[in-house]
Amino acid sequence: MTQLNVAMIGHQFMGRAHSNAWRQLPRFFDVPFEPVLSTLCGRDPSSVEKAAHQLGWNDSATDWRQVVRSPDIDVIDICTPGESHAEIAIAAAEAGKVVLCEKPLANTLEDAERMFAAVSEAGVVHMLCHNYRRAPAVCLAKELIDAGQIGEIRHFRGVYLQDWIVDPDFPRVWRLEKAKAGSGALGDIASHSLDLARHLVGEISAVSGLLETFIDERPLEDGSGRGVVDVDDAALCLVRFENGAIGTIEGSRFCPGRKNYNRFEINGSKGSLVFDLERMNELEFYEEVGPTSGFRTILATDPEHPFVQNWWPPGHILGYEHTFTHTIHDLVCAIDSGELPTPNFGDGVVNQRVLDAIARSSESRQWEEI
Amino acid sequence: MTQLNVAMIGHQFMGRAHSNAWRQLPRFFDVPFEPVLSTLCGRDPSSVEKAAHQLGWNDSATDWRQVVRSPDIDVIDICTPGESHAEIAIAAAEAGKVVLCEKPLANTLEDAERMFAAVSEAGVVHMLCHNYRRAPAVCLAKELIDAGQIGEIRHFRGVYLQDWIVDPDFPRVWRLEKAKAGSGALGDIASHSLDLARHLVGEISAVSGLLETFIDERPLEDGSGRGVVDVDDAALCLVRFENGAIGTIEGSRFCPGRKNYNRFEINGSKGSLVFDLERMNELEFYEEVGPTSGFRTILATDPEHPFVQNWWPPGHILGYEHTFTHTIHDLVCAIDSGELPTPNFGDGVVNQRVLDAIARSSESRQWEEI
Amino acid sequence: MTQLNVAMIGHQFMGRAHSNAWRQLPRFFDVPFEPVLSTLCGRDPSSVEKAAHQLGWNDSATDWRQVVRSPDIDVIDICTPGESHAEIAIAAAEAGKVVLCEKPLANTLEDAERMFAAVSEAGVVHMLCHNYRRAPAVCLAKELIDAGQIGEIRHFRGVYLQDWIVDPDFPRVWRLEKAKAGSGALGDIASHSLDLARHLVGEISAVSGLLETFIDERPLEDGSGRGVVDVDDAALCLVRFENGAIGTIEGSRFCPGRKNYNRFEINGSKGSLVFDLERMNELEFYEEVGPTSGFRTILATDPEHPFVQNWWPPGHILGYEHTFTHTIHDLVCAIDSGELPTPNFGDGVVNQRVLDAIARSSESRQWEEI
Amino acid sequence: MTQLNVAMIGHQFMGRAHSNAWRQLPRFFDVPFEPVLSTLCGRDPSSVEKAAHQLGWNDSATDWRQVVRSPDIDVIDICTPGESHAEIAIAAAEAGKVVLCEKPLANTLEDAERMFAAVSEAGVVHMLCHNYRRAPAVCLAKELIDAGQIGEIRHFRGVYLQDWIVDPDFPRVWRLEKAKAGSGALGDIASHSLDLARHLVGEISAVSGLLETFIDERPLEDGSGRGVVDVDDAALCLVRFENGAIGTIEGSRFCPGRKNYNRFEINGSKGSLVFDLERMNELEFYEEVGPTSGFRTILATDPEHPFVQNWWPPGHILGYEHTFTHTIHDLVCAIDSGELPTPNFGDGVVNQRVLDAIARSSESRQWEEI
Repeated sequence: MTQLNVAMIGHQFMGRAHSNAWRQLPRFFDVPFEPVLSTLCGRDPSSVEKAAHQLGWNDSATDWRQVVRSPDIDVIDICTPGESHAEIAIAAAEAGKVVLCEKPLANTLEDAERMFAAVSEAGVVHMLCHNYRRAPAVCLAKELIDAGQIGEIRHFRGVYLQDWIVDPDFPRVWRLEKAKAGSGALGDIASHSLDLARHLVGEISAVSGLLETFIDERPLEDGSGRGVVDVDDAALCLVRFENGAIGTIEGSRFCPGRKNYNRFEINGSKGSLVFDLERMNELEFYEEVGPTSGFRTILATDPEHPFVQNWWPPGHILGYEHTFTHTIHDLVCAIDSGELPTPNFGDGVVNQRVLDAIARSSESRQWEEI
Repeated sequence: MTQLNVAMIGHQFMGRAHSNAWRQLPRFFDVPFEPVLSTLCGRDPSSVEKAAHQLGWNDSATDWRQVVRSPDIDVIDICTPGESHAEIAIAAAEAGKVVLCEKPLANTLEDAERMFAAVSEAGVVHMLCHNYRRAPAVCLAKELIDAGQIGEIRHFRGVYLQDWIVDPDFPRVWRLEKAKAGSGALGDIASHSLDLARHLVGEISAVSGLLETFIDERPLEDGSGRGVVDVDDAALCLVRFENGAIGTIEGSRFCPGRKNYNRFEINGSKGSLVFDLERMNELEFYEEVGPTSGFRTILATDPEHPFVQNWWPPGHILGYEHTFTHTIHDLVCAIDSGELPTPNFGDGVVNQRVLDAIARSSESRQWEEI
Repeated sequence: MTQLNVAMIGHQFMGRAHSNAWRQLPRFFDVPFEPVLSTLCGRDPSSVEKAAHQLGWNDSATDWRQVVRSPDIDVIDICTPGESHAEIAIAAAEAGKVVLCEKPLANTLEDAERMFAAVSEAGVVHMLCHNYRRAPAVCLAKELIDAGQIGEIRHFRGVYLQDWIVDPDFPRVWRLEKAKAGSGALGDIASHSLDLARHLVGEISAVSGLLETFIDERPLEDGSGRGVVDVDDAALCLVRFENGAIGTIEGSRFCPGRKNYNRFEINGSKGSLVFDLERMNELEFYEEVGPTSGFRTILATDPEHPFVQNWWPPGHILGYEHTFTHTIHDLVCAIDSGELPTPNFGDGVVNQRVLDAIARSSESRQWEEI
Repeated sequence: MTQLNVAMIGHQFMGRAHSNAWRQLPRFFDVPFEPVLSTLCGRDPSSVEKAAHQLGWNDSATDWRQVVRSPDIDVIDICTPGESHAEIAIAAAEAGKVVLCEKPLANTLEDAERMFAAVSEAGVVHMLCHNYRRAPAVCLAKELIDAGQIGEIRHFRGVYLQDWIVDPDFPRVWRLEKAKAGSGALGDIASHSLDLARHLVGEISAVSGLLETFIDERPLEDGSGRGVVDVDDAALCLVRFENGAIGTIEGSRFCPGRKNYNRFEINGSKGSLVFDLERMNELEFYEEVGPTSGFRTILATDPEHPFVQNWWPPGHILGYEHTFTHTIHDLVCAIDSGELPTPNFGDGVVNQRVLDAIARSSESRQWEEI
């Protein structure tokens, strides 16, 4: 079987998740290529070397430009913060590599568009990693919608709630700096809800947004004083979809007890669907079937559920990390088939366009068209 | 014990619920007055007589003006559709009666203001029936908030979802006519979420609203053809509270499987609360207490929970109708104490002001101040 | 409409629940007789008079023998502790009255048999009040089972858990005295599980039981010292049903957090059912329907669900007390039709036989046949 | 870091789970040894070679005796069906290897005792793989119990329910043959409940058991006719613990909708705990804290929860397979520390003793002492 040589840039949280996915893929799935974890790239020589060993990479490097140009590498997997995505992805495209980019595609719409142009022009396979699309329960939701089982969609209600910055003494980390993170809850978590909305319901035509920062100054991490929080702590919006559905999307990190509560409810003319990432193996589904109608909790762990038969028997649940393995599975299949996987950089551009409109609307205090 | 002679105008759904409350009150609570179900008033002589017998009223009548002026009556309880509230309430106030009015206070802000002026000028006790404020679990939520147990409130997320008009062949009943109902989901159910928002979080300062009608024509009830639906099928809005909290409020009758899903989630700086009317005996509460933190499902049926000790032992749950008994309990106590109960007509005016702003915002496509 | 004159003996917890049911019945249901709350009977003149006023009875009395013989009374409703059931019921039967008896039918099997013989001989209508059979969700479970929707039953798993005597300083109330209560958790709450088991699954053929007393001495209520607890704190058993199903039944008042947790799970060859009294408006139902199979939470509040259409619209939940109204509804209909209602004294005898076998088995440490 | 050379015998379901654990351990945990997946051993040369490649083993073999004796191997991991456990484990012990054995330790008590004697005599490290002890939520339950947070334990209620043989046409697989599997639901799944009972509550002193076979003949897998099912389809028992607690344990594969429902409830004098494997990241905990008491759903994914900090941030749930990684983590640490891990072969013997007593009691129809 042909090998697929992968280099990954970045080795923090997302780097660990992607590494695991590359490692696990061939252990559980029959794929057309055998991924080789060739090179892990990071800034600091000693920490990237240590990470490479821990995460199972053959080699480590510190100069991403060199890695990107290396003829031995087939795939560039970008796991750095958003600010550097554009530069790396464009160079990778120009070098003819397959590019997988962790979300958000970029911190600005301009960068996202440049990236999409670059991969399109280069004709390389590109994919954006919005891993939650590939939780089996979400895949099942998509199947049910596509099969018409909830009818014409009327409502989408998406929230992504966490609580890790409720404490005002929590430090001003990079995710709270606009220069590095682009935005706050909006790009970090509301963007996941948005991506699921587009995936499951359709394109958004207009938004009314509200961004709010509750704590505008926090202690610096190095203890040297206090720094400004210039991103949103919470992002809310009303949305109109092109197909006539309406909805709400919200992200906040100020919700005590909500650890990773990425929840959506979709109501159609014939049924409803509810998903909650904290119980990601379950999908709630309602259809009208007379006196025994009720929301059913589908434990999406049966062999007929997407991706499941390659793992464990029914009722043996999957975890967070499996969603990345499924994502990379589909990327590897796409490399083989030549069909562009989704979401890809084109989706990244559209997502960014909507996020931009939400921010703009919060300023203008009126609806903004996409 | 002094008797309190009650007359009720209207005997449909709300009339049945209020009748039950008046009947049950003295059986379970020690109250300063003994309510007497004196006169039930309705338009049609034979049906009001039948209803009076069924619902336990001593007498029936068809001319509400006469009833309102009768010297034998102490309390006028208004259970008619919104369009007639103003006329009846104002006449009752002028006749010096205690006035209880089912929500919404009126179909228009102008009417609401006239009603509030009338009861204020007459100096009579007045109350608006928003019964869900007095589900024990909601009362407990209010106590916890007032005691500071969730800290400073950041988020309110209220939905009131039903599914009874999902079928496009469901007829064009009076609740779908603007002339009679004033509005659709907005005034009928989103108004409950709004009232809970104001009760639990505080006053709203601005809104961005979205009203939508999915099915704009339906069969007439008498089979004579089709009629226009000129009210909203769904109402969504973003809200800003005066205290800095932000939130969403939504009402829709197009959500398959949601029968009476009046749910709210409130996140404060120290904790969170969740309530769902379909499980109205439960309140979910999160506070940070170290490694055993978790949303706890409080079964609000213990003697120390509001109103509960007058009913049954722990775990013996209450139903929908009990919320009305509690409301009337507090009205009767207020008549005795002379203190104005809440919510009252003043709240009705404010609620109406916000509903108006939501509708206005849906037209203007920008935020509207209250 | 003919009146039905009712006298009730006893006015504590069950007396309050039954009074409410008699009062509410004609307000919500069209029944062939109009119940009249004629006489409430209790030992202490002043407290029974006060209770009669509070609970809505026309008159009060202290001599139950006289009441039972009164020609003005049609129905005797027995709400006293178990020790006096036999004497009252037999006298009532001999006087030709309809007899409704709160569970347990009696404290001993012998008494139960004498009671059943008396009502049978007298040819009077008799009913045992096991109110949970008539929670709409339980009625729906019965309908589904009878319609074959879960197939042949294999398993019954019933628990009835409470926590009100967890504290060792909780006093030695009458329910903890064998002379008055007959038994502890066994007769008080496990008996409800047993009755549901027989109702839903079928007759029990053999049991292996275990009775346990965790705290065998408690403070007396009058503060005069400590008294012996000579009933079981918890009762567990394995059961075999005549139809081949097997199961477990358990009652305990030593389960912190379980307030009134009367739960059962039934597994058949085609599906499963789960009920929990603390969420008594819901029934969980599983049937195999391919990839969307899942336990569905049926909110048993739709008009097509048993008893519901006489109350409120979908999603407006019922409470504990409604189960008594439904029981009395069926009693009144049975008086009219002449068909013996269930459960009746015959069921009471069988229930008692099984409870006896459980206690016997706990002594013999082996299986006991019924 | 010193390497630890592992050989595994068997490569079906459990072999896949153990392989994954050995591979993942060093990627997420800092352990004193680096495990090397040296040799995978199976009967059929071509299938074991394929499995070795797929599962990440360096080499494959077909003669387990040779593997067990190989001086290059440090650890023998036994993943075969129960019938061959004794022979392999005893040989491994005699060869001085660390032995990890998948549960059940053996199909008979005699074999289990021989195995325990062999490892004890050889002085090798031994461990029994009951992986559910190391779900973080179960570890948390253990911590809470040990810290006295639920007080003195009164009740254990354990069920392990599945539904994979509900269909009478499901074939007579090896798990339904006594010669291969030893027993049915009893040893396969009730044994997990039993192990958790012993781990969390304490030693069992006596049992009353009931084994039942609903379908006693099934189609053979090769289509050659029908074969006898000579194991139990369901196993129920009452248990007494040495510390005074009482309980029930049940295993069944005839429960439609229950896929992997390994659930327990424990009630103590101060609180309660509930766990359900299908939601294995959650632990329900009740303690009395006044009016806000309620079962709290602890999402056991915080850094302070056992094993969690080596994986992902809060709310990013773990799956079934992680429990094996944790088990192997503790084995590797035990090899380093020299302290015997739990559960070990001694536990296996005790577990087998209780399972035997349950089977014996089902025959004798009386309680059996352990």
